[in-house]
Amino acid sequence: MKLHHVIKAQQFTRDLLDQIFSVAEEMEKVTLSGGSDILKGKVMATIFYEPSTRTRLSFESAMRKLGGEVITTESAREFSSAAKGETLEDTIRVVEGYADVIVLRHFESGAAERAANVSQIPIINAGDGPGQHPTQALLDIYTIDKEIGHLDGISIAMVGDLANGRTVRSLSYLLSKYDDVKVYFVAPEVVKMKDDIKDHLREHKVFFAERDDLAEVASQVDVIYQTRIQKERFGDRVQDYEKARGKYIIDKSLLKVMKQNAIIMHPLPRVDEIKPEVDSDPRAAYFRQARNGLYIRMALLKMVLLD
Amino acid sequence: MKLHHVIKAQQFTRDLLDQIFSVAEEMEKVTLSGGSDILKGKVMATIFYEPSTRTRLSFESAMRKLGGEVITTESAREFSSAAKGETLEDTIRVVEGYADVIVLRHFESGAAERAANVSQIPIINAGDGPGQHPTQALLDIYTIDKEIGHLDGISIAMVGDLANGRTVRSLSYLLSKYDDVKVYFVAPEVVKMKDDIKDHLREHKVFFAERDDLAEVASQVDVIYQTRIQKERFGDRVQDYEKARGKYIIDKSLLKVMKQNAIIMHPLPRVDEIKPEVDSDPRAAYFRQARNGLYIRMALLKMVLLD
Amino acid sequence: MKLHHVIKAQQFTRDLLDQIFSVAEEMEKVTLSGGSDILKGKVMATIFYEPSTRTRLSFESAMRKLGGEVITTESAREFSSAAKGETLEDTIRVVEGYADVIVLRHFESGAAERAANVSQIPIINAGDGPGQHPTQALLDIYTIDKEIGHLDGISIAMVGDLANGRTVRSLSYLLSKYDDVKVYFVAPEVVKMKDDIKDHLREHKVFFAERDDLAEVASQVDVIYQTRIQKERFGDRVQDYEKARGKYIIDKSLLKVMKQNAIIMHPLPRVDEIKPEVDSDPRAAYFRQARNGLYIRMALLKMVLLD
Repeated sequence: MKLHHVIKAQQFTRDLLDQIFSVAEEMEKVTLSGGSDILKGKVMATIFYEPSTRTRLSFESAMRKLGGEVITTESAREFSSAAKGETLEDTIRVVEGYADVIVLRHFESGAAERAANVSQIPIINAGDGPGQHPTQALLDIYTIDKEIGHLDGISIAMVGDLANGRTVRSLSYLLSKYDDVKVYFVAPEVVKMKDDIKDHLREHKVFFAERDDLAEVASQVDVIYQTRIQKERFGDRVQDYEKARGKYIIDKSLLKVMKQNAIIMHPLPRVDEIKPEVDSDPRAAYFRQARNGLYIRMALLKMVLLD
Repeated sequence: MKLHHVIKAQQFTRDLLDQIFSVAEEMEKVTLSGGSDILKGKVMATIFYEPSTRTRLSFESAMRKLGGEVITTESAREFSSAAKGETLEDTIRVVEGYADVIVLRHFESGAAERAANVSQIPIINAGDGPGQHPTQALLDIYTIDKEIGHLDGISIAMVGDLANGRTVRSLSYLLSKYDDVKVYFVAPEVVKMKDDIKDHLREHKVFFAERDDLAEVASQVDVIYQTRIQKERFGDRVQDYEKARGKYIIDKSLLKVMKQNAIIMHPLPRVDEIKPEVDSDPRAAYFRQARNGLYIRMALLKMVLLD
Repeated sequence: MKLHHVIKAQQFTRDLLDQIFSVAEEMEKVTLSGGSDILKGKVMATIFYEPSTRTRLSFESAMRKLGGEVITTESAREFSSAAKGETLEDTIRVVEGYADVIVLRHFESGAAERAANVSQIPIINAGDGPGQHPTQALLDIYTIDKEIGHLDGISIAMVGDLANGRTVRSLSYLLSKYDDVKVYFVAPEVVKMKDDIKDHLREHKVFFAERDDLAEVASQVDVIYQTRIQKERFGDRVQDYEKARGKYIIDKSLLKVMKQNAIIMHPLPRVDEIKPEVDSDPRAAYFRQARNGLYIRMALLKMVLLD
C-alpha cells in the first residue's frame, strides 16, 4: 500500500494502520540508536497559517532524526489571502518547488484537501481548523495499541469537552474500524458528544453509552481519554465554563478505582483536569503518548517520501 | 570572476550573468539527483528585518540542498534600532561571527550596501525596501533565457504596476545589457513606468514603447511579464485602485492571440491579474519561474562560498 | 567532572571553568577547520518564551557547527500559561521527547531551575528574566582569560548600568573565584551596583571600590567592561535616563589613557556608550567577545551531550 497524502482519519484502513504502527515501532528503535540518514537530501516544508509549536516541533524533530532537512514558517500570515490575496493553491504550487513534502497547518476546514488537489508532492495535514488533525488521531490509537496490546475489545472512556474536542472525534472514527470496542462518553452537559459521531458509531455497530459518574466508569475501562475544557469556546459564559471545568478531574482518588493495567491519556496541553499528583503513576500515559507522536510522524514521513 | 557580495542588479556583467546561468543549470541537475554536500559545514544566516516567507524559504531550501546549514530569524525587529538602538553595522559584525554568509532583507533602501561595507563574509541582498531585489532580477532573466533560448533579440511586454514594481525595474536594467531587445510598457495611467528607467533604456539604445492595447502587444512579444497592482500603494484611492486593477487581465482569450512559443511570467503572488484558467497552458511559466529562484540562489550560494 | 544542566554562574568551580575554557579553545580550532560531526544525530530544542535573536542564533550556530540538528521556536508564547494554561514543567516533559538538549529562555527568574527539576535531558539556561544568563557570564570570563592571559591578579572597571545589568552581576560572581582581583565600579548615581554583590565580594575577599572618574580608572585597569544604560528601566524619568546615559562614554580620548594591552568589553547591543571611532582600535574586544560566545556554547553543548 502506497501512502501519499495524509489528510483525514477516515482515509486509513485497518491494514494501513497496522502498517503505520509497525513502521512507528521501527522508528522508535531508530531514535534510540541515534537516528538515521534515510531521508538525507529530502526537504520538508512546514507551512503553518496558525502557530502550533508543539505539532511543528514534533514534525521537525521527526524529519531531522531521519536525516532530512526542514524549511519552516511559524506564521504564514503573509502567505494568507488577507495579506496580498494569494490563494492557498498558488502558495502550494510555489512551495512544492522548494520541498519534497509539505506539512500544512491551516485555520480553515478542508484546506489540506484543497492543497492536496493541486500538489505534486505529498501533503500532510497538521490540523485544518475545526476539521481534521489526522496525525494526532494516529498517535492516539497507536498509543492505545502499544500500551494495552490490542485494539479489538478495548473499552475507553472519553472525558471532558467532547463537543469541541477534535481528538476524541477523530479517535472515534478510527476506533470504529475495530471489533468489540466499547466507548463511554463522560461530559458536562454543555459539551456533550455530538450526534454525527454517535450516528457513525451506531452505523459501525460500536457500543457506546453516555455516563455521568466518572469513578464508576473508571473502574471498568482500559483507557481514560481526558480532554481540556476549552475556555476559548465559552466566550462570555464564564460560569458555564467554571462549572464544566471542575466537573471531571482525574486525581489520586480516581487512580484507586482504576484497573491496574488501564491507562490515562490526554492530548495536552492540560490545565488542571489531571492533577500533577497523577503524573508519577505508571498508568499516566500522556507524556509517552506525546512521544509516540514523534514515532508516528517519522513513520509517515518515511512512508510518503520513500515507500 | 569571483563573486563576493550580491547587492544590486547593475553589478552583473553579461559574462558574469552567463556564468551564473551555467551554474544554475548545474544546480537544477544537482537538485534532481537528490542534492549535494558541497556546502557541508557552512552556515547561512537569514536576517530578515521584515518578513518575506517565500524568499526566505527559497534561500533556505537552496542552502540545504547543497548540504549547508541555516540559522534564521523571520523578524529581526529586536535587532532594529527601534528596539534597543543597535545599528545594522553592529548587528552584521556580530552575526558574521556565527555564519559564513548573510542573506539580508531590510526595509531601507541601501541597507545591503551598508552591510557589505562592514562585513567580512558575503552579503546577499534579499530585498532592501524600495531599493533592489537582485536575486529576483536574476531568476527573471534566467527564466527568459531558459524558456526562450536566448536574450539577444527578445521582445517583452511589461504589464501592470510599472511605477511601483521593483521587479520590472530591475529586469529593465539587466535587459539593457543585451542586443536588439524590445520592451513594451503596458500600464494603467496611474502606475506608468518612471522616467529613470526610460532614460536608462535610451542611454543603452534599447527600443521601448508604451502601449494601451494588451491584446495587440501580446500577439507580437516573446514574453509577457505580468505584475500585481499593489493595493497598498493606493491608500485611500480605492477607485483608482479598482480601475487600475481590472484593466489588464490575462485570461483564456489572451492566450489565443499570443505566439505559440511565447511565455507568461509573474513574480507572484498574483491576485486576479492572471486567471486560474491560464495555469494549465504550457506558456504559463510563472511557477517554473519561482522554481528557477531555487536554482539561481543555489548558484549564488555556491559561487560566493566556494569559488 | 560531568556537566549536566547549565543553570547559573555560581554552579561553576574554578576547575570546571578551566575545563570549559579548554574545550572552548578546541572548539575555536574546530570552527576554523570547517566544523565537526560529533553531535550528528543529536537534536537541540531552543524554547524561547521571549525573543533574543542574538543568543538564539549563537546557540543554533554552535549546534550546527558540531553536526547537530535544531528545532526552534522564536516565541513560545503559545506554550505559556497565558495561552492555554500549561505549566513550564509540562512543556519541558513534552519537548524532552523530541530533543536531546533544551536551551531555554524565559521571562521569569528561576524558570531554568524549575525546568531542570523535571527534565531527563540537559537544560541550558539562555537567560531567565532578571535572574541568570550563565552562558553570557562564561563567555565574558573566557574572553578576559583569553585576551589578558590570566584571571588571577586582573583589575577590571565595570561601567554604566550596574544596578540592572545582569552581565556585570554574574561576572562578579565568577571573578570572586580568582585571586587578587580588583574591581572598580563606575556608575551614574541612579544605577549604582547593588549591595548583594558588594557583600558577596567582601565575603570572598575581593577588592572593590566605587569611582567617579572613568579616565582615571581607565589608566589603571586591564579590562573596561562597558554596559548600556537600559532606557526601558527608567520609565517616565527621561531626564534621569539622559543624564545617566551621557555620563560615561568611551571615545578616542579615553583610548589615549588606557594601558596598551588593556581591553574594552561590552555585552552588546551598544547604543552610543562606545563611539564607533573606537571600533578599529585593537583593544576594542567586544566583537571578539561576541564570537567567543559561539565557542563557549559549542563547548557546553559538547560537554552536556557527549562527556
